[in-house]
Amino acid sequence: MTFNRLLDEIHNYEVGKPIELVVREFGIEPSSIIKLASNENPLGPSQLALNAVKESISNLNLYPDDSAYDLKLALSQHYQISANNLILGSGSDQIIEFCMHVKSYPNSKALMAKTTFAMYEIYAKTFGVETIRTSSDFHNLDEFYSEYQRHKPSMIFLCTPNNPLGECLNKEDVFRFLDRIDSDTLVVIDGAYQEYALYFDDKKGINPKELIEKYSNVIYLGTFSKVYALAGLRIGYGIARDEIINALNKVRPPFNINSLALVAAKESLQDKIYLDKSLQLVKEQMPLYCEFAKSHNIKYLPSFANFITFILDDMADSSKVCKYLLEQGIIIRDLKSYNLNAIRITIGTKSQNERFFEVFSRFLEQL
Amino acid sequence: MTFNRLLDEIHNYEVGKPIELVVREFGIEPSSIIKLASNENPLGPSQLALNAVKESISNLNLYPDDSAYDLKLALSQHYQISANNLILGSGSDQIIEFCMHVKSYPNSKALMAKTTFAMYEIYAKTFGVETIRTSSDFHNLDEFYSEYQRHKPSMIFLCTPNNPLGECLNKEDVFRFLDRIDSDTLVVIDGAYQEYALYFDDKKGINPKELIEKYSNVIYLGTFSKVYALAGLRIGYGIARDEIINALNKVRPPFNINSLALVAAKESLQDKIYLDKSLQLVKEQMPLYCEFAKSHNIKYLPSFANFITFILDDMADSSKVCKYLLEQGIIIRDLKSYNLNAIRITIGTKSQNERFFEVFSRFLEQL
Repeated sequence: MTFNRLLDEIHNYEVGKPIELVVREFGIEPSSIIKLASNENPLGPSQLALNAVKESISNLNLYPDDSAYDLKLALSQHYQISANNLILGSGSDQIIEFCMHVKSYPNSKALMAKTTFAMYEIYAKTFGVETIRTSSDFHNLDEFYSEYQRHKPSMIFLCTPNNPLGECLNKEDVFRFLDRIDSDTLVVIDGAYQEYALYFDDKKGINPKELIEKYSNVIYLGTFSKVYALAGLRIGYGIARDEIINALNKVRPPFNINSLALVAAKESLQDKIYLDKSLQLVKEQMPLYCEFAKSHNIKYLPSFANFITFILDDMADSSKVCKYLLEQGIIIRDLKSYNLNAIRITIGTKSQNERFFEVFSRFLEQL
Repeated sequence: MTFNRLLDEIHNYEVGKPIELVVREFGIEPSSIIKLASNENPLGPSQLALNAVKESISNLNLYPDDSAYDLKLALSQHYQISANNLILGSGSDQIIEFCMHVKSYPNSKALMAKTTFAMYEIYAKTFGVETIRTSSDFHNLDEFYSEYQRHKPSMIFLCTPNNPLGECLNKEDVFRFLDRIDSDTLVVIDGAYQEYALYFDDKKGINPKELIEKYSNVIYLGTFSKVYALAGLRIGYGIARDEIINALNKVRPPFNINSLALVAAKESLQDKIYLDKSLQLVKEQMPLYCEFAKSHNIKYLPSFANFITFILDDMADSSKVCKYLLEQGIIIRDLKSYNLNAIRITIGTKSQNERFFEVFSRFLEQL
């Protein structure tokens, strides 16, 4: 059968292994499996969110509220913006897809860092948008600017904090960069891990209200999959001026957000105690990973998110490390698909992290 | 800002009004509102599905199983097919989008009935695929064949039973039609309401296993939004040969199905008693709508689904009827956007239907 020729170029995103798969493949009890692979919040969702979900399940026969009236109201209060500046996606991921769709036209190009969230390029390919990358692994805004001048991209992706490396741009540097970008270039600020960055260092925090007041060509992406612990429900959001939101809405499918995500996200936003507890956990546990790395002579990347990347160099092969840990019921992320001999580990609970240190130490002793 | 020029042509899908909106706009108590607008199953989801959802909510911090192992296993057993012949969508709607995406290329055309599910054309527009329509409102396979010969479309959509009109093709006619279509043309059999059709008349039932064994170029779409009463969770599926499924998977975003949809759908499939009760309700109540129409000299379209369409002709304006009913807390579907002076009513519970008859009678008496 004849298909769109763009498909030939697409290699699907490699997802973190689900617990169910490890249960089936290795016969390990679900309760003994630790998943530190997908930057999920190990505390589980807020109790307020869970209560709201329970109350809503008897209405699942009805389509969701496609206008997402209540959640947009809550988000607009949270960020002090208008509901018209919001669009919801099935994960912020879906909003990346919408951006790529609306900015796909002849000679459209997307500029991004050498090592950044893999879905940018995958969506670019599905819409025939050419990907341009800077040469440093980390985001380097001088390089971004010179590539911008050279290629005149239609889109620029800044992932800050950056997944999978964890580095984070300063807000002032981002704004200075934006001052120099023409208004026809859509700049996507992917803030999936912004809550962590802001908690660690307030120079890193980007305020969406200030962002869209100042710039007409920017969209800020947020998600409920990370610190809000709702990855299973698939919900994220974009914040931008009306012109951009209206364009994105043209390619948004009706009912793209399920009913339970709508209520859970709304309640999660209200649960400040839960948010603080979640952020505090990462702040407390992250230094233990840094110490572990130092004491084992492993190079690590300082992180402003809820994960840390260990660069293995010629110490060991990342796939072998992941396989060893997997057989012990610990799922982490191999960065081989990013062309790095590195592993990314989500900061878990105290006991999960201790178990990781214990098992990984055993591996290292064998070398 | 410059956008993809295809956006200029897109007018968004008009969704059924949610109950929340009627509450806000008319100050009516949610419990007094009857929604007969979106062909939802008024009995609510299966208890088995609800139990499964409740058991899974504490894991919502984790991403869903992207391979959908358990649900695909259940569906493959249900239909006696291989799990490799399945793809899941956030509603079968999303699989329509995938089909349009993979079959979009220069001069690609989609052939469909004059009056059929509005999303086919909306997705066609977002991917630059030209829409060709037959001239009869109802599906007429002779016309479909002559338009097929004339236009050489890359896709053909058969919606059977057809939304929003309710007519349904005979299986034998569909198969005879497929015998004459070349293998490069993707034929989408949208079976969103097939469970009802099969229950009413077994000549209408299309067996996906038989379909894909016989034809390499066909995809069957099913949904959990209608008789399975899970519209709020967004889940549907496509059944086709590997070649088609593999192509569609290239444009399927990771984690497109939320965790609760996966478990609820699986459990719903097992609940045969619930399924039978849901189908029986429509079979019992549908004749009351026909009788009501006859007794009030309203033209109605015999339906093989869980809704019925009344053609109002010059009796009354459909938008006025809908507004009148809305103010009384009854939400039905105006077919004005389909260029018909007609209303579509979902078959509700006995008491919901009685309330509709009562209020609509009052409206008719005023004329």
